[in-house]
Amino acid sequence: MKLNIAVLPGDGIGPEIMPQALHVLDAVAKKFNHEFTYHEAICGAHAIDAVGDPFPDETFKTCMDADAVLFAAVGDPRFDNNPTLKVRPETGLLAMRKKLGLFANVRPVATFNCLLHKSPLKEELIKGADFVVIRELTGGMYFGEKYQDDEKAYDTDIYHRSEIERILKVAFEFAERRNHHLTVVDKANVLASSRLWRQVAKEMEPKYPDVNVDYMFIDNCSMRVLTEPRFFDVIVTENTFGDILTDETSAITGSMGLQPSASLGEHTPLFEPVHGSWPQAAGKNLANPLAQILSAAMMLEHFGLNKEGALIREACDQSLEQNVRTPEIQVEGGKHYGTKEVGEWIVNYIEN
Amino acid sequence: MKLNIAVLPGDGIGPEIMPQALHVLDAVAKKFNHEFTYHEAICGAHAIDAVGDPFPDETFKTCMDADAVLFAAVGDPRFDNNPTLKVRPETGLLAMRKKLGLFANVRPVATFNCLLHKSPLKEELIKGADFVVIRELTGGMYFGEKYQDDEKAYDTDIYHRSEIERILKVAFEFAERRNHHLTVVDKANVLASSRLWRQVAKEMEPKYPDVNVDYMFIDNCSMRVLTEPRFFDVIVTENTFGDILTDETSAITGSMGLQPSASLGEHTPLFEPVHGSWPQAAGKNLANPLAQILSAAMMLEHFGLNKEGALIREACDQSLEQNVRTPEIQVEGGKHYGTKEVGEWIVNYIEN
Ligand SMILES: CC(C)[C@H](C(=O)O)[C@@H](O)C(=O)O
Ligand SMILES: CC(C)[C@H](C(=O)O)[C@@H](O)C(=O)O
Repeated sequence: MKLNIAVLPGDGIGPEIMPQALHVLDAVAKKFNHEFTYHEAICGAHAIDAVGDPFPDETFKTCMDADAVLFAAVGDPRFDNNPTLKVRPETGLLAMRKKLGLFANVRPVATFNCLLHKSPLKEELIKGADFVVIRELTGGMYFGEKYQDDEKAYDTDIYHRSEIERILKVAFEFAERRNHHLTVVDKANVLASSRLWRQVAKEMEPKYPDVNVDYMFIDNCSMRVLTEPRFFDVIVTENTFGDILTDETSAITGSMGLQPSASLGEHTPLFEPVHGSWPQAAGKNLANPLAQILSAAMMLEHFGLNKEGALIREACDQSLEQNVRTPEIQVEGGKHYGTKEVGEWIVNYIEN
Repeated sequence: MKLNIAVLPGDGIGPEIMPQALHVLDAVAKKFNHEFTYHEAICGAHAIDAVGDPFPDETFKTCMDADAVLFAAVGDPRFDNNPTLKVRPETGLLAMRKKLGLFANVRPVATFNCLLHKSPLKEELIKGADFVVIRELTGGMYFGEKYQDDEKAYDTDIYHRSEIERILKVAFEFAERRNHHLTVVDKANVLASSRLWRQVAKEMEPKYPDVNVDYMFIDNCSMRVLTEPRFFDVIVTENTFGDILTDETSAITGSMGLQPSASLGEHTPLFEPVHGSWPQAAGKNLANPLAQILSAAMMLEHFGLNKEGALIREACDQSLEQNVRTPEIQVEGGKHYGTKEVGEWIVNYIEN
């Protein structure tokens, strides 16, 4: 298969972890006879410095022309103390999502057996948890009408039926391919927008007779993922609730630094680690490249390259099992590996 | 001291746990020479059945005439499958908050040593955690303009400066009386309303020089309370974020059924357990009365009756230590106590 891949390393540790993912992709291409070409483009603080725009038109064009986007992370402490600046790395992120129509953010919540002890949850609770959170990513309060002066401010949490239908379709289809259990998370006892979500979901239910649907309020869900994470198979929710919930569900795995994600939508699909740009570690060969590498695996699986994806996952699992780990997850007394060394080990595993 | 207390048992287990709290108050009144008078009023599903309104005017009047409201819980499964009904127990709850001007919901997050093993979190993480979450309760999306038709729906997350100032004042003052650490939780990197919150908080900071303030995004906070709950002292946040966060922080104590809360504001202050109406247990003498009894303790402390509050807390602690517990928290093989029996034990402890 030929794949044109837009490569956006972004800020912080991005430029270090991205090359490892590309080396892994190269090894896979060679082994399975594929042709992956990379088109690098700038974004984030990096792009603000270069051209004054965190998601420049040229980067947008590179993304639109590609079959997939492999993205790392954006963010820089220079912008952190002032979240009200008009031009910031995060505004580029939102522009990217909106312009590429990436309405479905898909976050698998999976645990690694050898890292369960890192979870804040008791091992017997989190063990075996395996679900997917699907967050609506281009609607709701993030993009609704805003207003602010010194005396008052508002945001508008608005959803149109078509936005709800398309994300629910993605969620129902994930549930069909997984364990046929969909949890629609909302606040329908208070919010009008949630009530429309629930109405549309109920209308769609009959089309997916083999999916069991339940409805849960977001406050209740924020507890239930802690007390009974194995209850869930597929969760779908709106943008703001999803922002909070996906971070909570990443945290309970104990390996947030290892979680990949996909954002799917109208145009080119995008794949990225759940973790941020970790500027403090930049340039130190410290960052864990696994989430970036697993994002590449998700990308290949998206195109039906399941054997290839599985091999990458196996290689990542093996690196953990064999203690080839970056410092933050290394066992006491174990040898630390750098970003590069972990990447090389995984490439080597795939080649042999 | 003379206190006129409006008593709202509400639905489900409310009518069973409330009498236990009143017996405890009676015992305290006798011991410390106070005069507490009770004025019972209906609300919730109960009140819908009786007069078609979940928060009738007469109940409102009873509350306004009282020095404090002691409330249990509302909610009934008859209304659960349809969160879109116009008249539901929860709409009464919102009306009660709004009419009584209860803008500050105060939820202490405290653990009981002998119940730490019930927490979903690892014991070494949750042990010693002791903080307060202050949720704005009468503004934001809950009460902003709403619209819904078949094609679109919206809610408006609106805050006025005065609403933000008064809740932040409560939070700063709590931090002054506690460990001088206030965390303002928002989503200022995306929401205009959050930006106004942050602006107002920064303006107020100099007035409280002995309070250390930090700002945290809600998604980050939803992780941090799991990975480092001891970091927090006082958290303040807006209504919707607070709804999600307070449920999450109740869950991590492992004893949600034991947490009391206060709602303070313009008129009569209100005290209520964090748990709901648990209709499945109603009439079975099964429900744990501790959260209701501890809500009464919070109420007394609100009026400066600190010795009285402390004695009630001691009695509750001792009931747990001595395994006088309702079934859901009884140790394996231990004897179960009913709602009444736990209440009686605590009354007896106070009397002697
Ligand atoms: C940086 C921020 C705008 C972003 C969001 O809230 O969507 C981030 O928290 C995320 O979840 O990707
Ligand atoms: C029942 C519901 C309207 C209410 C809320 O969301 O405020 C409840 O969840 C709470 O937190 O007291």
